[in-house]
This record gives sequence, structure tokens and C-alpha cells, in this order.
Amino acid sequence: MATMGRPWSMVMKDIRVGLIGFGTVGSGVVKILEKNGSLIEKRLGAPLILKRVADLDLETDRGVHVDSSRFTRHARDVIEDPEISIVIELIGGFEPARSFVLDALRHRKHVVTANKALLAVHGDEIFRVAHQCGVDINFEASVGGGIPIIRSLREGLAANRMLSLFGILNGTSNYILSRMTEQGEEFEHVLRQAQREGFAEADPSMDIEGFDPAHKLAILISLAWGGRVRFEDIPREGISTVSPLDIQFASELGYKIKPLVMARAEESQIEARVHPALIPLDHPLASVDGVYNAVVAVGDAVGSTIYYGQGAGQMPTASAVVSDVIELARKVHHKTRGRLSPYSHQRRYVRKIRIKNIQHVDSCWYLRLSIDDRSHLVGRITGILEKHGIGMTTMIRGGQEGSRVVPLMIMTGTARGRSVGRALEEIDQLSGVLEKTIGIRVEDQFS
Amino acid sequence: MATMGRPWSMVMKDIRVGLIGFGTVGSGVVKILEKNGSLIEKRLGAPLILKRVADLDLETDRGVHVDSSRFTRHARDVIEDPEISIVIELIGGFEPARSFVLDALRHRKHVVTANKALLAVHGDEIFRVAHQCGVDINFEASVGGGIPIIRSLREGLAANRMLSLFGILNGTSNYILSRMTEQGEEFEHVLRQAQREGFAEADPSMDIEGFDPAHKLAILISLAWGGRVRFEDIPREGISTVSPLDIQFASELGYKIKPLVMARAEESQIEARVHPALIPLDHPLASVDGVYNAVVAVGDAVGSTIYYGQGAGQMPTASAVVSDVIELARKVHHKTRGRLSPYSHQRRYVRKIRIKNIQHVDSCWYLRLSIDDRSHLVGRITGILEKHGIGMTTMIRGGQEGSRVVPLMIMTGTARGRSVGRALEEIDQLSGVLEKTIGIRVEDQFS
Repeated sequence: MATMGRPWSMVMKDIRVGLIGFGTVGSGVVKILEKNGSLIEKRLGAPLILKRVADLDLETDRGVHVDSSRFTRHARDVIEDPEISIVIELIGGFEPARSFVLDALRHRKHVVTANKALLAVHGDEIFRVAHQCGVDINFEASVGGGIPIIRSLREGLAANRMLSLFGILNGTSNYILSRMTEQGEEFEHVLRQAQREGFAEADPSMDIEGFDPAHKLAILISLAWGGRVRFEDIPREGISTVSPLDIQFASELGYKIKPLVMARAEESQIEARVHPALIPLDHPLASVDGVYNAVVAVGDAVGSTIYYGQGAGQMPTASAVVSDVIELARKVHHKTRGRLSPYSHQRRYVRKIRIKNIQHVDSCWYLRLSIDDRSHLVGRITGILEKHGIGMTTMIRGGQEGSRVVPLMIMTGTARGRSVGRALEEIDQLSGVLEKTIGIRVEDQFS
Repeated sequence: MATMGRPWSMVMKDIRVGLIGFGTVGSGVVKILEKNGSLIEKRLGAPLILKRVADLDLETDRGVHVDSSRFTRHARDVIEDPEISIVIELIGGFEPARSFVLDALRHRKHVVTANKALLAVHGDEIFRVAHQCGVDINFEASVGGGIPIIRSLREGLAANRMLSLFGILNGTSNYILSRMTEQGEEFEHVLRQAQREGFAEADPSMDIEGFDPAHKLAILISLAWGGRVRFEDIPREGISTVSPLDIQFASELGYKIKPLVMARAEESQIEARVHPALIPLDHPLASVDGVYNAVVAVGDAVGSTIYYGQGAGQMPTASAVVSDVIELARKVHHKTRGRLSPYSHQRRYVRKIRIKNIQHVDSCWYLRLSIDDRSHLVGRITGILEKHGIGMTTMIRGGQEGSRVVPLMIMTGTARGRSVGRALEEIDQLSGVLEKTIGIRVEDQFS
């Protein structure tokens, strides 16, 4: 307590930052430091100086000026610079990003990263090394772009036992489903359109097969429940099986189809899932369209809270990166570290989080069958569902009058994942069932 | 940098907390510390011990157990206890809350408060004393109940130049307008109903006349633009002039009437206002009903972000208070203070923020006149509006066919506050205008 009496507005020294990865988000970071540098100095009490920028491509014009003397092709020029106290990693992917981050930590640099894949898969190793080296790693930009959801979970809701999380966290999937909803076009068509417009990658599998949102969910679960998550444990389905017909049926029943992530605390495990879901039209998540993301975080004291904003893009992501840098710069000034654990729980309390087997998860389902109209199958189908304990609430026969192949849409009551799987296996073996049946979960309990 | 090499999971000592004010929120704080105590210990690394509770009423059963040895009727028993490092002030109002807070700071205690009135009016004095004494004051619960909006503005969006803020921050006003919208009842009737149900105070003037949301807006402006705000400078109108007729007209035109707060940065001043406003039905703020609050925060890098949750009530407010206590406990452990300025700008950069004169503010308006139908006034009214440079976009004549007194509703184009004021003064002097004309601003630019 001896040092508590003095006022704290001593003059701070420059804080020097290094950037590895000068792509879209990296250029955004440079733009913010340039444009808002004096404002950030007022907030922080010291200037943030971008000392070095490493990238393999030093030629492309990024629309921002960085003095060529600060450029380097070698990440180690950033990592080993003794004046740099904060390293920003924005190259993405597993390697060499993992090595650069570990190296920077071992050189006693605080690290800021937006790399969700890296943290979801190698987070445990990285957090351990940060701990051992007495430095911190911030990663607000890894989930929800510019939305301060990690800070909110780790600090703003720190008094709460978290009950559940729901989110729309993949811009590409959400953009594609939003466009399919507006235009009534097929998935493949809208995907190619999104690729042409730059809203989907040339290889879109990380997004549309749900890896990206599952990475983000793994990070949020770690924070919300203070433990390690094995990424492979998180059940994950992509959006490519959704058809315009499903969107239309869902809409008639008062739902929108959205790329959902969710997690809910049970007694000794976490129910977690990543998949397209039917969401009631009047729920706020149903209005989260295009490149916007949102997270519903439910705590035992605070109740339901929602966080909404742009989940990707140059400037929103750079906003989160630079805000993280500012926080670490405060730590550099105050010479503190470990104020917050990356798991939200202090390291000695961190345990492995058990993720519920998806086969044991109860949901209501939307089922779409493709049947031969002459086969008079409805009785047999409902019989199979009943045998597996699956009730029905709605059944709609689609298609033109007189057409041979017709879609049959069924909304079920609450049913266990395993029962639905077994029932669909039997149904798909019926001779009049012409295609693999599509099943999409309905989510209407946001608590 | 000499201390940076050691891991940080040293065992922390108990952190002792004192509570002044054992009312609704105070009891909520005790409930959280009891129920989530071991979870908080895992997050913080040390137990939070509620050592003393001061209140004048030690008899009433609050539904939580506090050992009688910890009770006192004297705030000084909390403030002067050398073991207590964090004092929570939850008595509300100006005095004795102001004296207790200043006293606690002078005794080198960190302070947590939910007292918006106190901070909006005496914040400058309180922040100065905290600074001089080398301790911190946290006040997340003062705005938006459990929503972590203060943390988000001060830290999560720290990289941004803030462009604007929009919010619904008064639960009572929002509840009353929501009920008027649902039931079509008059203001006075719904207010009495809300008072019976505990959603409005016996003296509701702080809420319905806009003092409470203006206090909250003053705090948010201070944080967003890093300066002192003179509370009296914030233009403020209450909701009591809104009638069911206005709500119905607004709805026909695609709007909801909501108790809005807003602030927008201009060259050298901040446009700020607190008043009921017509908001487009499809904007997220239009769906914020009942006791829920929301804030739209727009930054130059992040774009538009939204924060939503319960804006009042025992447990949401206590969630924010305890989360603040946890943050201060981390500071006690790390022996840091002043990491963040209560103004978001470091003290030497804090300046007075100039609030724009409401007479110079441009808005579209909804006007409701009460006219004698036989007086054929429409031509004269539009003439007066035109003379003051006020265009019209819609005019609707209400009332029954053949009734003598009819409401006339006008939607204007963008017009300066002063011009509208002058025009209404002239219009209200016309002999066929039977009541004072009601004017409500339209808000449809959320950027």
C-alpha cells in the first residue's frame, strides 16, 4: 500500500509495437494508428509507435503509408527487437503463425492476435507459454470482429455464472443464407456470387462447413466456463444442405434459417453445437443479416444480454486489434501481467471442459423428405418416427399438383439426436424416398 | 522489466469489501457474493469477503443472510475499516452519498457506485479526489444496469474516434410508453398502473421528466469524448406529453415512440438530447421494450455496435456492481491504479465538452395540432410553417367525421429547433387552435 498515495499521471514513455502480417486487417491497424494516434495517446497517456512491419509482400500498395525503413521480410526482426513490447500477429492459419506467436511470447513480448483457428486448436500451448514467460495474449478480434464480446464475457459479466451463449459468428455463412432468403436462389449459385463479390474465400470450406464458427465457439466456451476445450469435440454441421425450399417452409412457419453457434451449461458438461438452425422470426438473432454478427450471453444474475456489430472486415477487426494493443500498453506501463487469465479462470483452476455428445442432445427438428407421390409413404414415415419416440407438430406436402417427386416437410416435437438419426436412416431406406432426408434443428429456447 | 519473468499465479490474499446501502441492489450484491463466491475466487484468484454492511435499517428481511456482527448503522465503520480496500456505495441520491464516496476515496479505498445522479452532477469533484488519493472509482452499474456499456466504450472501442451514441436508458419511461403502445391507454393511467406494479417510483419525476436518462447520457458523453459535461447543458424533455393518438399516428407511418437519448460529435461540440422520439419500426432500438435498455455506439473504425440487456432491477444491477468489484480487486492485487481514467482520457487531456444549443439542432418533426374543424386553418398553418422554412412530408386529419375538435398531424422535413419553436408559437396563437401543439422529434439517422 506504500505506493498508493501518489497521483498517477506521470509521463509515459512511447510504447513500441511490431506487426507481423500486412494484409487487409494489418493495413487497417496501420490506418487506425495513423488517424487516431493522437486520440489514443490521450486515452493511454503515451504514444503508440508502430516500429516494425513484417510481411513477405513489401510491394503491394495498401493505401497507407509505412516508411520503408520499418518494413522487413523477416518476422524475427519484429520478434527480436528489444524496443518492441507488443507484437501483433495477423498472418492467420496454423504455421508459421504458431511459431511466431510462441517465439514472441518467449521473447517476453505481449501478443495480440485475431487468429481464431490457432487459438481454438493450439490455445492451450500458447496460453501456457504466455503464463510461463510472464506476458499476456489478447485476442478480442478472434471472435465477432469489432464486437467487444471477449471483454464483456471476461470482465463485464465476471460476477455471473454463465448459463448459455448463442451467436451468429460466421459472416460468410450468414451472408449466403441471407442472400438465399432474399433471392430464393440455390446455395451453389449464391456461393459463387459471394466468391465473385469477395464475401467468400476461393476455398470456402472453413466458413461453410462450420470450422470458423466452431473455432470461435471453442474460444467463447473457454472464457465463459473457464477451461480447455478440445476443438474436435464440438459438433459441427455446415450450411450447404440448406435449400431455398427449406428457407421458404421455415418462413411460412415463422422462422428464419441462420448459421447458429450455441453452448449451454449442464450439470457436469457443456452442450455445444454449430449448425444451421430455424430461429423464430421475432428473436433478435433472426434480424442479424449479412456481415453482421451477434452474441446472446445469458448469466445467472444479469439475465440475457446481446452484443451486435460487424463480425469481419478490415476496420471493425482492426478496431478490436488496436483496442487490445491499448490494453496491453497499459500493462506495459503499469508493469502488470496476468491481471486476467486467457481462460477467465486463474490457471490453477483451469480444467478440461466436457462437451456433450450430440447424439444425446434434445431438439425440435425440421425434416424435409423427397418422396415419390405415388408411393403413399406418409403412414409408414410417421410410423417410423413414432416408433423412435418422435412426435410431430406440423406436416406440409409441397410441390406442384400432379408432380411425381414431392417434398414433404415435417416439424417434430422435442427428440433426441440419436433417435432422429436412427429414424432418418430407416426412412431413407424406404423405396419411395428418393433423396437423403434433410434435418435442421429448431432453436427457440434462448436461455 | 525485471519482474516480468516470473509466472503470476502466486496465492492472493482475501480482498475485503464494505457495502454502504443494503436496499434492493445491495441485497442483490450479497446474493451474488454468496452464490457465486467460489466461482469468483477462481476468476480472481482470491476470495472476496464482504466484511461490513452499513444501513440505517438493520431489521427488514432482505432474503439473504448477513451475520449480524457485520452490520452497522454507521457508514464510517465501513469507510474507516483499515482491512477494507473496496467500498460499494448503493444508497443513491446526492447526500450523504457524496460525502460517503469522497470520504472513502480519502481513506484510500477504491469505490464502486451505481449512482448516476451523483456522478453526472458531482463527477468532476469525485474523479479529482480519486485521482489525488491514488484510488479508482468504477461505475458500470450507473448506466444500462447489467449491460457492460461503460467497459465497452472505455476499453472495447478504445481504438475508435466515437461518432455517435443512441440509447434507451430509462426503464420506467420505456415501460410506460411500451404499455401505452400495447394498451392504447393515456399516460396518466399507465403511470398509475406502473406505480402500483413497482415499475415507477411514488415520485416519478426523475424518470418521466428525463433527469435519469440525462444523467446517464452525461456519463456516456464524458467517456466517449473524454471530457467534463455540465449536466444542465443537456437538453431534456419528458414523456408526459405523448398521447395514445401520437403512438397510433406514428405506427401508421412506420414508427414507434421511444424515450431516446442521443449524442453525436460535431466539429467542436457534441449534439446531445434526451426526449421521446419517433424511431423507424425496423430499427433494433424500436424493439427494445419494457425494462430492457440498449445502446448503439458508433465508432469510426468499428462502425455501428449495439449492447442490449436489462437496464435495471436487483440482479442485473448487482451483476454490474460485483463485476466492478472484481476488477478493482485485481487492481488491489496488482497494486496498480489509474490504469483507466474515469473520463477515458488521461486527466491532463480532460477538457470541458461543449453541448450544442438545442435551438440550433436540425430534426424532422412530428407535430400534432388540435384544431376547430370549422375554422379552415390548414392553409394558414402550412403558411406559417413555410414562412419559417419548414417543409411538410405528410399531413393527416384525425377524429370522427363531423366532430368539431379534430387532431391534425404533420410530419415535417428537416427543420431547425428554433424555427419549429417560433412557428409553433405563432400557430398556437391562431384562434382555431384549441390546445398547445405537441412536437416530437423523428430520429432516423443512426450514424
